[in-house]
Amino acid sequence: MADPTPSTATSSSHAQFAREAGPRGEFVRQPNRFTDRITADGSSGWPAEPGRYRLVWSRACPWAHRAVIVRRLLGLEDAISLATVDPIRDERGWRFTLDPGGRDPVLGIEYLAEAYRATDPDFEGRVTVPCLIDIPTGRVVTNDFPQITLDLSTQWRAFHKPGAPDLYPEDLRAEMDQLMAVIHDDVNNGVYKCGFATTQEAYEAAYDALFRRLDELEERLRHQRYLFGDRLTEADIRLFTTLVRFDAVYHNHFKCNRNKLTEMPVLWAYARDLFQTPGFGDTVDFDHIKRHYYATHDRINPSRIVPKGPDLSGWNTPHGRERLTTRPL
Amino acid sequence: MADPTPSTATSSSHAQFAREAGPRGEFVRQPNRFTDRITADGSSGWPAEPGRYRLVWSRACPWAHRAVIVRRLLGLEDAISLATVDPIRDERGWRFTLDPGGRDPVLGIEYLAEAYRATDPDFEGRVTVPCLIDIPTGRVVTNDFPQITLDLSTQWRAFHKPGAPDLYPEDLRAEMDQLMAVIHDDVNNGVYKCGFATTQEAYEAAYDALFRRLDELEERLRHQRYLFGDRLTEADIRLFTTLVRFDAVYHNHFKCNRNKLTEMPVLWAYARDLFQTPGFGDTVDFDHIKRHYYATHDRINPSRIVPKGPDLSGWNTPHGRERLTTRPL
Repeated sequence: MADPTPSTATSSSHAQFAREAGPRGEFVRQPNRFTDRITADGSSGWPAEPGRYRLVWSRACPWAHRAVIVRRLLGLEDAISLATVDPIRDERGWRFTLDPGGRDPVLGIEYLAEAYRATDPDFEGRVTVPCLIDIPTGRVVTNDFPQITLDLSTQWRAFHKPGAPDLYPEDLRAEMDQLMAVIHDDVNNGVYKCGFATTQEAYEAAYDALFRRLDELEERLRHQRYLFGDRLTEADIRLFTTLVRFDAVYHNHFKCNRNKLTEMPVLWAYARDLFQTPGFGDTVDFDHIKRHYYATHDRINPSRIVPKGPDLSGWNTPHGRERLTTRPL
Repeated sequence: MADPTPSTATSSSHAQFAREAGPRGEFVRQPNRFTDRITADGSSGWPAEPGRYRLVWSRACPWAHRAVIVRRLLGLEDAISLATVDPIRDERGWRFTLDPGGRDPVLGIEYLAEAYRATDPDFEGRVTVPCLIDIPTGRVVTNDFPQITLDLSTQWRAFHKPGAPDLYPEDLRAEMDQLMAVIHDDVNNGVYKCGFATTQEAYEAAYDALFRRLDELEERLRHQRYLFGDRLTEADIRLFTTLVRFDAVYHNHFKCNRNKLTEMPVLWAYARDLFQTPGFGDTVDFDHIKRHYYATHDRINPSRIVPKGPDLSGWNTPHGRERLTTRPL
């Protein structure tokens, strides 16, 4: 398990629910409801099998975005098909309004909640992405996002494209698990803790932890291209999906405003480097990202007005980080 | 009249009132209620007379801040005393809770609204700063902020300090009035139009006008130190009180986020130059500014959580603009 904090590290949607608040006004994520795993040997009951599962994502969601980048880097597009939800949820949650007739053409449902209810009629939490759905039965196998991506790397190996990178190499796993855990707490989930805090104290604690960690990462990445030296790993993907949303939404909407990402030269170059790598920037949709966040959290942005800024033209500027590595991806 | 748009250019408080919304969701300021003038010859019934009037301001408010800078630059501190309200209003409005006993020691009132009601028992609009109050009677002479500052320059000349600058020179008035009017519409009031818009369309129109005007000012100031060349004028003061609040509140809270002020190199250096000029930076209170905006507009920031950022340490860094002028202030 890469993520040592399953009880607070467990969903992918962005509404502010009373049940996800702690006693001091801090944000506490709901646990992931479905934690079955798809395995190479099928011992879990869910064998890795091309064409059998459908990955549901929102282009807005950083947790879901991870899975789509991993799928792309590993060349699993033909093995696992992709369903994309509308960035704007209504009162029934994520919906397939981008598809003809407002219905996912493979699963045949209008709302993701239908699959959740078909799997667990008693489920009352937030319906979240990413999730993997078993197409023949329409059941949700897993919405356990930190495990989903690791399993794409380790359990689907037979279906990777030739020359696919090893995003979760054995010799790095212990270190990766540790680093991904603190990045999760302080950065990936940390921005949500800033935005969803309901007291000044809870907000400030989250803000301090966030920028302390970003400062540390700024130093770590100053003389190496990726978080683990020359090797691009899942840790980079997890950091990227937060960084790419930072100035567009977290800086303003979640009050993560000590500075913009563009004001941290190392992290900004690192993020641009990844953005310009196939599988990263080409899976980013700033329009979905901005519309989703600003139109979803009525307790933060009651007007639902979506800011026109920031200017995002810098993402494709040269980053100069090739010089830090001697090994091509 | 320096400001040709009195009907929309007329208050100083920041609450979002239904009566200040236009048909397309745009923000329309209430008119200023009290428009008497204090004159050098007393022909208005209110003669310029040291010790007679009290200027009420909030350190948070850009419109009131103008008057305090002008008062300082002209050396009118002894002639016109100053009352400072709490940055946080309660349901009865601006209050003197910073003073011992929660009462202004000169006017003897707890709420600014008391002076408004003493002057006009039927007044039902927003109670605003700045205003000038006649101490003997406790009546509000004027809350007409664009006129207040011009009159400090022109009607109080007998009480200016030796060598005081001419902030509204005769030979520039026509040009100044024109420039201040467009800066008012697009920048000073423009940031409020962004923040208080209730439709996406009204917001975007205000945002476009704001940044178009800032781009124009960036060019205008590239090769001259102040808006009118070598001479510091009231036009600079009016632009400054908006710029100094830009990154601290407007960028996030009012969604003026194409870029931060720090990302516009000329305007940022211009604003730092003024900030470092006596009377400007020493009258800025970022704590009051941030607490006021974020705790006042429940329709924009229901949580009332005040962002810890941005990092404001850049305000005292060198600006290099001395080279643009040959005349000292």
